[in-house]
Amino acid sequence: MISVNLAVAAAAAANDTWAASDGATRAKLLEGLAAVLEGAREALVPLADRETSLGPVRLNGELDRTAFQLRAFAKAVDAAFAFVDDPAVPGAPPAGHPHLRRVRVPLGPVAMFAASNFPFAFSVLGGDTASALAAGCPVVVKAHPGHPALSRATAELASGVVASLGLPAGVFGLVEGGIDEGVALVKHPDIAAVAFTGSVKGGLALNAVAQARPRPIPFFGELGSINPIVALPSALAAKGAELAATLAGSITLGCGQFCTSPGVVIVFDGAQPFVDTLAKALSEAKPHAMLTPGMRANFDAGVARVAGTAGVTTRLASPAGDGSNAAPRPFLAETDAATFVANAALHDEVFGPACLVVRARSTDEAVQVLRATGGSLTVTLWGAEDGSADARRLVRAAQQVAGRVLFAGVPTGVAVCAAQQHGGPFPSSTAPATTSVGLAALDRFLRPVALQDAPAWLLS
Amino acid sequence: MISVNLAVAAAAAANDTWAASDGATRAKLLEGLAAVLEGAREALVPLADRETSLGPVRLNGELDRTAFQLRAFAKAVDAAFAFVDDPAVPGAPPAGHPHLRRVRVPLGPVAMFAASNFPFAFSVLGGDTASALAAGCPVVVKAHPGHPALSRATAELASGVVASLGLPAGVFGLVEGGIDEGVALVKHPDIAAVAFTGSVKGGLALNAVAQARPRPIPFFGELGSINPIVALPSALAAKGAELAATLAGSITLGCGQFCTSPGVVIVFDGAQPFVDTLAKALSEAKPHAMLTPGMRANFDAGVARVAGTAGVTTRLASPAGDGSNAAPRPFLAETDAATFVANAALHDEVFGPACLVVRARSTDEAVQVLRATGGSLTVTLWGAEDGSADARRLVRAAQQVAGRVLFAGVPTGVAVCAAQQHGGPFPSSTAPATTSVGLAALDRFLRPVALQDAPAWLLS
Repeated sequence: MISVNLAVAAAAAANDTWAASDGATRAKLLEGLAAVLEGAREALVPLADRETSLGPVRLNGELDRTAFQLRAFAKAVDAAFAFVDDPAVPGAPPAGHPHLRRVRVPLGPVAMFAASNFPFAFSVLGGDTASALAAGCPVVVKAHPGHPALSRATAELASGVVASLGLPAGVFGLVEGGIDEGVALVKHPDIAAVAFTGSVKGGLALNAVAQARPRPIPFFGELGSINPIVALPSALAAKGAELAATLAGSITLGCGQFCTSPGVVIVFDGAQPFVDTLAKALSEAKPHAMLTPGMRANFDAGVARVAGTAGVTTRLASPAGDGSNAAPRPFLAETDAATFVANAALHDEVFGPACLVVRARSTDEAVQVLRATGGSLTVTLWGAEDGSADARRLVRAAQQVAGRVLFAGVPTGVAVCAAQQHGGPFPSSTAPATTSVGLAALDRFLRPVALQDAPAWLLS
Repeated sequence: MISVNLAVAAAAAANDTWAASDGATRAKLLEGLAAVLEGAREALVPLADRETSLGPVRLNGELDRTAFQLRAFAKAVDAAFAFVDDPAVPGAPPAGHPHLRRVRVPLGPVAMFAASNFPFAFSVLGGDTASALAAGCPVVVKAHPGHPALSRATAELASGVVASLGLPAGVFGLVEGGIDEGVALVKHPDIAAVAFTGSVKGGLALNAVAQARPRPIPFFGELGSINPIVALPSALAAKGAELAATLAGSITLGCGQFCTSPGVVIVFDGAQPFVDTLAKALSEAKPHAMLTPGMRANFDAGVARVAGTAGVTTRLASPAGDGSNAAPRPFLAETDAATFVANAALHDEVFGPACLVVRARSTDEAVQVLRATGGSLTVTLWGAEDGSADARRLVRAAQQVAGRVLFAGVPTGVAVCAAQQHGGPFPSSTAPATTSVGLAALDRFLRPVALQDAPAWLLS
């Protein structure tokens, strides 16, 4: 764990300087990071493609988004310095009180666990790194072993920017390794918070380590999500074929390796033409290879779990692979609401191009299905425009289980803006009051402090 | 656990109605609760005094503060309905995106564990209840067994207000019992969050229960705090005697049974006259009885732990009690920074009138002492007005370990206003990004949801 200790020591040494840096300095670093990413596009994208199989179109788009995100935080950096001021009120309490100013202070060095499925946007210089740096926290990235060469190349560029701006090297660091290194990083006493994107299993294990420290620290884990879509009859009547085609594209996008990939579609009576069109579109889709052989094996196991559940009918089979990461065939199955609600095995995300159609006989049943999913990054409601009593019930239920509720389109594709929320109730996030995408992501790395009767020098 | 199940079932049944209530309805309930508290003052204060020994002056003041707090949340209730809007931007991502509105939704029924030491302000109708109701969450209060009759009387008044406004009874509920009932409440699947004020041990045990649920829920625990004061030589030179008297009053206020009671004072060379004056003032103080015999026994054990640590010199002894809650004598001891830092036994709060003077030889040592305390609700810095390099270092260290940093006065007495922050790093809080006092307390009970392409009926 020498490299973990060295990286965290460098981050701790840089902490006071970076925490005290002004907005202009932070913006300059973030803009510099965006610029080097774009400048190295011709080298980075082929490297990323070799390691992830995600293809140049997607990877170029993702690099654009990552640079956009870094610049968005550069523009939003002043939010870290916002404060609430309560002038002194003379007189006895409770009405009378001293001067109080509520500021926010950076938490300290952040351990960032890169995701496999977004080698740019949720990896070395992704949203977690950008938002932590904007908040004034040094970052130690744990590289994802799925794209080690890309991680090293990106980190080298980042360190170059840090050095060129005369900042302490420990503002940004990279460590590599497996579970042991990850655990050592989370346990390190100088780490103040953890940002994680990955599986429920890995996230819960690391969160347990974070909470078992002598001093527990915040763990911002974005874990699994099943992303239900509710297709109301009015929407399918109006444009069922178009929605089926869009949905098939969303299910197979990136070979289904999106945290917002739609895994469940709730339909009502009369939806069979829509389901048939969806099945046809999926049968014709040509997904690319998966990220790793392990991902493919997990996908096959998830498909077998769903297909093997009594009461589930397979519409499109997805035969198990050969041990490689070769592209799977999309999987589609159908069941009824009662079977879905009763079988916990159907509530877990199948990471990859898989979707389960759930037939509901009533709004009541649809609400029960939504509740059974637990927590999800997104719920999509097609056909809620009329504001009927049923639509209102479904919207309330959707808001109770999701961090984002969509009324059109598909959940894949997450805008980076102030109003975004990426993180819903457990298991989709371990910290559903926070977001890992969008400008509010920097709030995670700041802690409020009230300054009482502070001297003038501190308030200026 | 029948009563727990009944109370939570009532809260769950009231949840949709209360979550959908408008600001005017919530304000009316909160104002009604303030009014009945004040109206029943003549009955409630003697009842509280019999059960807590806190005395009528303090208890009348606390009732005033509790009513003030309920009305403050009534005025602030619109904050729960605030939103961030990002109009649609045409064009391809990442710059182009759909319309997104970030709103906040109430978490659902909140379990609130009342504190022993604030029978009004942190009990049945205290800040946790007020802020949860303002956020749109029904509340099930677990009464503190230290003041059962007062809890019942207050709950009866509250239920009367709920009924008179025609609200579902489950908007507010009370349960009584011990550890088993508390655990059953936290485990109940319809409970969505927990607010707790109490001991580190009790808080950690209940937090573990909350996190071990099939679906973990947020646990807002305000636990122990040592509240260091740093007395710089310039402050003691200017008004050491006055500060010693003020500090003695703060240490003995409410028999030291405040979460913000100052338990450590860091002094530098030349502070002996100040320490002597403090010792004299404490020796003349006449605290009232403690809340319960158990509190007194814990205080005696804490004093014995500190006094028995090698390197600690007792200045004012506090002999162990007789098994009752009889008033203890204030305890004062001295040690040096190295001894403090090396002995974890000195870092834990002694709940009651006890203070440890820690002699530092340098700013470095003072910073090490602050860091050794871990996390604290408050740090107080006397003499930082000059903005010297040493003052700045101490302010940075103080901000890193505390949720509130004071530059004058003493930490007891917590203003209820927008800029307040009550909650620092662990162990003082299990959720240091949140506050349990002040208007931001309602943020705890809301979760952000992004509405994407929402229909007009939902946005109006």
